[in-house]
Amino acid sequence: MKKVIALLTDFGLDDNYVGIMKGTILSINPNVEIVDITHSIEPGNIRQGAFILMTSVKYFPEDTIFVAVVDPGVGSNRNALCAKAGKFYFVAPDNGILTYTLQNYKNLKIHFFTNEKYQLENPSKTFHGRDIFAPLSAYLAMNIEISELGEETKFSKIVQLPALKCYYDSFGNLIGEVVHIDRFGNIITSLSSNALGINMHNILKQDLKWKFEIGHTKIKNISMTYSDVEEGEFLAYIGSSGFLEFGIRNGNAAKKIGAYIGQLVLAKKVGIFEQFT
Amino acid sequence: MKKVIALLTDFGLDDNYVGIMKGTILSINPNVEIVDITHSIEPGNIRQGAFILMTSVKYFPEDTIFVAVVDPGVGSNRNALCAKAGKFYFVAPDNGILTYTLQNYKNLKIHFFTNEKYQLENPSKTFHGRDIFAPLSAYLAMNIEISELGEETKFSKIVQLPALKCYYDSFGNLIGEVVHIDRFGNIITSLSSNALGINMHNILKQDLKWKFEIGHTKIKNISMTYSDVEEGEFLAYIGSSGFLEFGIRNGNAAKKIGAYIGQLVLAKKVGIFEQFT
Amino acid sequence: MKKVIALLTDFGLDDNYVGIMKGTILSINPNVEIVDITHSIEPGNIRQGAFILMTSVKYFPEDTIFVAVVDPGVGSNRNALCAKAGKFYFVAPDNGILTYTLQNYKNLKIHFFTNEKYQLENPSKTFHGRDIFAPLSAYLAMNIEISELGEETKFSKIVQLPALKCYYDSFGNLIGEVVHIDRFGNIITSLSSNALGINMHNILKQDLKWKFEIGHTKIKNISMTYSDVEEGEFLAYIGSSGFLEFGIRNGNAAKKIGAYIGQLVLAKKVGIFEQFT
Repeated sequence: MKKVIALLTDFGLDDNYVGIMKGTILSINPNVEIVDITHSIEPGNIRQGAFILMTSVKYFPEDTIFVAVVDPGVGSNRNALCAKAGKFYFVAPDNGILTYTLQNYKNLKIHFFTNEKYQLENPSKTFHGRDIFAPLSAYLAMNIEISELGEETKFSKIVQLPALKCYYDSFGNLIGEVVHIDRFGNIITSLSSNALGINMHNILKQDLKWKFEIGHTKIKNISMTYSDVEEGEFLAYIGSSGFLEFGIRNGNAAKKIGAYIGQLVLAKKVGIFEQFT
Repeated sequence: MKKVIALLTDFGLDDNYVGIMKGTILSINPNVEIVDITHSIEPGNIRQGAFILMTSVKYFPEDTIFVAVVDPGVGSNRNALCAKAGKFYFVAPDNGILTYTLQNYKNLKIHFFTNEKYQLENPSKTFHGRDIFAPLSAYLAMNIEISELGEETKFSKIVQLPALKCYYDSFGNLIGEVVHIDRFGNIITSLSSNALGINMHNILKQDLKWKFEIGHTKIKNISMTYSDVEEGEFLAYIGSSGFLEFGIRNGNAAKKIGAYIGQLVLAKKVGIFEQFT
Repeated sequence: MKKVIALLTDFGLDDNYVGIMKGTILSINPNVEIVDITHSIEPGNIRQGAFILMTSVKYFPEDTIFVAVVDPGVGSNRNALCAKAGKFYFVAPDNGILTYTLQNYKNLKIHFFTNEKYQLENPSKTFHGRDIFAPLSAYLAMNIEISELGEETKFSKIVQLPALKCYYDSFGNLIGEVVHIDRFGNIITSLSSNALGINMHNILKQDLKWKFEIGHTKIKNISMTYSDVEEGEFLAYIGSSGFLEFGIRNGNAAKKIGAYIGQLVLAKKVGIFEQFT
């Protein structure tokens, strides 16, 4: 069975960079299935890349090799990493892009990648996606041992991103942040259904627990889906990745209120005796 | 032989939605070939999606499974459909997106899709592309029987889009509409070569039958291809899908005249004794 | 082993054109691996397409069939070509898009493509990507002989693009041009590391040989990679394709200085006794 190599980068699709990575992979190992997660991470936005990667992995088949290249430090002395986590492999620069994904795994094996045998010869200093990470992914799909790649390390020793914002302020409000804005203008936040104590498949009894604020916009209810509100109306809901989102039915919420990545989001408890369960 | 699963959505490629659909498909059935038709349907524009799907299908191999997800009603009580039409399968929300394609088939078998066995568990209310339609397409490629999916229905009972505009006004002019504008600024209309009585492979004797109008722009001839007119000149021609198009040689016609989807288009008969053949 | 068919066009991904080409290919020959190089060549910009193709090919596997369709003359009397160069095949309109790639090969076999047996029937006049080039690539992957396609010709007889600018002016300065601007705003020029006498893997001793100018911007050094300069600072470096590039660390150089494709670029020799080696 072909193994899947799943690519996430900030290279876009307008240049030939992603195509060249695929050519490189197939030149080494034609027996793989390459899937694009996305190549539209904001240039250099490691944190957005880390979030999008984290919300993608569980939908991929066993043995998928994820190649995550958002790499503003390419060619510097930052390290390259390979990790095995549960049933997946990850290949990335050591800049934090794996933080949110790997922190969910107990069964974790991480190695620095220094073995030149599994890279292109004379790698450039500006395109390690092609010269380092694509070749490594192609070789990994050939069942090389991760221990062959370089020195072993551990999660606590690799570069970590700051956690996604999700904490209580002094008034007991839960504070989050905007982590992504999608094509429809839906505003994806860092507040997980877990943190909010919301079971997204059984939401109806819980809809009075929180009020939400983003900028000057306040939303009093949590909805199940867009069509629960009127055309053009704002709604809050637990998105398909399990995080709080804001949207407008048949409209672009982010444009309407000028939302931006990093913007603060507030969840206020309603009433007095609420409990998390 | 691998079956093709062909995807058409309004999800764009900037988010991870399409990548996640592919991961979901390959997790269930790795033995398929996934092809993107396009993911750039205008958000929620079912009609544009229906037109683009209709002009795409015949170029795909036998047994291709088309997944068409432009789905503003996701999570509401709208139904999900699976259809077998000629040599193809279709999977889509019941919102009209299949209208223009299925109406061309006599040999048609349509079922509602309700069998939870062929969906992800606990489907979300906001991403049926991932939770409902991608899994169904993966299972269909494993030769499950369409009758297993849910209750049978028929074309007249599923949601229909209004027909593409193509009618005679009281002055005997043929009225159509702009249905798509492509990357080059070519303006694709709903007037088919059939409706215009034009054989697109033998156009030269027929070029005086019609004059065309869109907005304030009038075109007196029909051309075979861009280079039939001078650089920068406007032309009308039968496009590669068999519909009347307007373009500018080495220019962007839609920008030049501010064309938009839904804009009216007029074909005026020239002379007195013309006949359709 | 599946052969790779690599696509480079100016069709974009917003329409169904590329998807239809893939459907067409797979309808004829399902036993191929289709890879997108890019579809974002500026509409009709043959020269940009030729440059991007040239910098892509060597990363692809043996026997890859490259389909390069930037084709403003579609449907006119321009010819169609098929070339075998080294270990690769090329399929393209005869408009110069293969110039920069093929000129690097000695072992070259070029045929006009006129054999209707390997095209779709009744090809349109406006979409030869679908009707001519996609089918040809699918058949080529089935090991048909290139001599079957049409009359043989040679490199000197096919349409040539003007060479990429790279010449000395009367002051002894090397003159180049901007040939591409990437997603990050990096400015790719026509000045190769060869022309500049720079070994990109051993750059440090050579950094005083040239000063560079683009518009009003002057750069005194050549860097290895972005992190060699401060955040927001301009740099010149040999890019991953072996050509001089200008960029800004964590910034968009092209936007900052308003660079454009075709803009002149200047390399001035520094000091008196420099030598190329």
